[in-house]
Amino acid sequence: MISGLDIESGVVDLSHGAGGKASAQLVEEIFRPAFANEFLNQMDDGALLPNQGERLVVSTDSFVVSPIFFPGGDIGSLSIHGSVNDVAVMGAMPRYITAGFILEEGLPLSTLKQVVDSMGAAARACGVALVAADTKVVKHGEADQIFITTTCVGTMADSVNVAAERIRVGDQVLVSGTIGDHGATILTSRGDLGLDTDLKSDSQSLHDLVQEMLESGVQIRFLRDPTRGGVATVLNEIAEQTGLGICIHEAEIPVADGVRAVGELLGLDPLYLANEGRLVAICAPADAEQLLQLMRSHTKGKDAAVIGEVSADARHPLVLQTAWGSNRIVPMLTGEQMPRIC
Amino acid sequence: MISGLDIESGVVDLSHGAGGKASAQLVEEIFRPAFANEFLNQMDDGALLPNQGERLVVSTDSFVVSPIFFPGGDIGSLSIHGSVNDVAVMGAMPRYITAGFILEEGLPLSTLKQVVDSMGAAARACGVALVAADTKVVKHGEADQIFITTTCVGTMADSVNVAAERIRVGDQVLVSGTIGDHGATILTSRGDLGLDTDLKSDSQSLHDLVQEMLESGVQIRFLRDPTRGGVATVLNEIAEQTGLGICIHEAEIPVADGVRAVGELLGLDPLYLANEGRLVAICAPADAEQLLQLMRSHTKGKDAAVIGEVSADARHPLVLQTAWGSNRIVPMLTGEQMPRIC
Repeated sequence: MISGLDIESGVVDLSHGAGGKASAQLVEEIFRPAFANEFLNQMDDGALLPNQGERLVVSTDSFVVSPIFFPGGDIGSLSIHGSVNDVAVMGAMPRYITAGFILEEGLPLSTLKQVVDSMGAAARACGVALVAADTKVVKHGEADQIFITTTCVGTMADSVNVAAERIRVGDQVLVSGTIGDHGATILTSRGDLGLDTDLKSDSQSLHDLVQEMLESGVQIRFLRDPTRGGVATVLNEIAEQTGLGICIHEAEIPVADGVRAVGELLGLDPLYLANEGRLVAICAPADAEQLLQLMRSHTKGKDAAVIGEVSADARHPLVLQTAWGSNRIVPMLTGEQMPRIC
Repeated sequence: MISGLDIESGVVDLSHGAGGKASAQLVEEIFRPAFANEFLNQMDDGALLPNQGERLVVSTDSFVVSPIFFPGGDIGSLSIHGSVNDVAVMGAMPRYITAGFILEEGLPLSTLKQVVDSMGAAARACGVALVAADTKVVKHGEADQIFITTTCVGTMADSVNVAAERIRVGDQVLVSGTIGDHGATILTSRGDLGLDTDLKSDSQSLHDLVQEMLESGVQIRFLRDPTRGGVATVLNEIAEQTGLGICIHEAEIPVADGVRAVGELLGLDPLYLANEGRLVAICAPADAEQLLQLMRSHTKGKDAAVIGEVSADARHPLVLQTAWGSNRIVPMLTGEQMPRIC
């Protein structure tokens, strides 16, 4: 008989990934309490879910962020927000989530519990049930602490249609808040830079903001969350998909002072920094003001702004009009800005 | 402008995980050709799937097998078979799959392509569409080559009901083929043992065998795939879930000669070795012979056997009657048999 887990001072060992008694114990003492719901409680290798009666949206993301705890969040809550947001910006309601954990031998059980509890709290806050999970353990040095891959399944009403092909010349481009907070926070959280800032990740779920936007009656053409690669990458992708151009105005782009300062210090453009709780919305010109006010009235969109418009100029996918009135082409991110930001 | 990937001699670098142009290139040149289907071709952050009109089954697994290529398979095909089988043995038809890749910087692009092509071929063979994927790259030494987490979504007809609570005393226990092949193969594939065997993993999808079994009219009480922890762990779990006992007969358990030899040499019991293409089925006594013949007539069940029966003896969850007639309790796997078998 194995005694209870020593969560205070114990560590993950290879037996926790072997599928036997120790694996079961990890599930019983750490995972189940954090995620308990009727589907997970089936305790099968998969979860049986009811007929949804609607179209489905599925999205998956692997999370390898370093450090695993950072101002404003941790790898656990981030792994929920990331997949939930991918489903939400498709116009769907996130319902279920699965998680695959890859743990490095030696990870303190207390760390694992902290991450898993944070995931559970984030899932509850989003109204999604974690319905299936798997854990593997690799030897010390074969992974870095903890990697989490989540897959979110959502349902989408027949009336919803947000797709890039609906975008038209003249459409307005909005962001739901300041940009680059997550990327700047992760970068400065890495001790080697020796920076002491009060930055905080924007990691949060967007499903409730999106639902309010969709239910408002405003014609939203397109939504996307600008994660890795930032707003610049998303707008370049939209330009490429539509064959249109986008012009954005530097003076209108909300950037937190701390993010601007870090960007200037390190030579990083906030347009390329990752966001984990912001969205880009595109709507018809006549609807822009109403959509902006609606977003600003939501706590998750209080710093929303109209930052630009769609143009017919396909030769220059994304153009930034600087504060001085000059124009600068903003290309798609080509190199690596920083690894393991999410 | 970035030129095409040098698949022959190039390696994965951090830019391939940064979400910019290099990431897009990896998708275009390696992932899309392997997986192309109407849902993945939407090229959104999530996949929009039709209303399934049935109950859903969702399962997830992370794959960290080492070595990544082994006799009978590789981490790519294994990552499809593993999740597909979890859904199939719930009684569902696997439909869609997602994949999260964690790549170690320096992984040869040719290796990645080989793995991804193998995944694509396995998915097509199973009739599942890979509808969403994500790739992260970590620095050299922060992961070991490639980890893949897959999530499979299946649909389940209302008429299907295979659940542990349906198991009754006297029910027969069948396996679909020789046991322990995958575990023994992975162990001997690790060069450090210096063993030269002709073992081969049983990695294969079971969805077609399961569908034939379900459509046969035979009353199948329960199905499960005995992966990590092997047949002994699955049978112990069933005993625990039902509050009943299970007795199996050593002489009836199919074990390949090579697996038996490796087991004896290394002191490993095939009952605990992992399988990746076998299932355990439980049915009423009157149906056992028909089910056995049905399984044997399928190429994926040709070595099927009735190996035991369910008893009322809850004090001893799993008992093995040896070839000599004595009884031995087979406990749940307690320690770690070997890491990274799947």
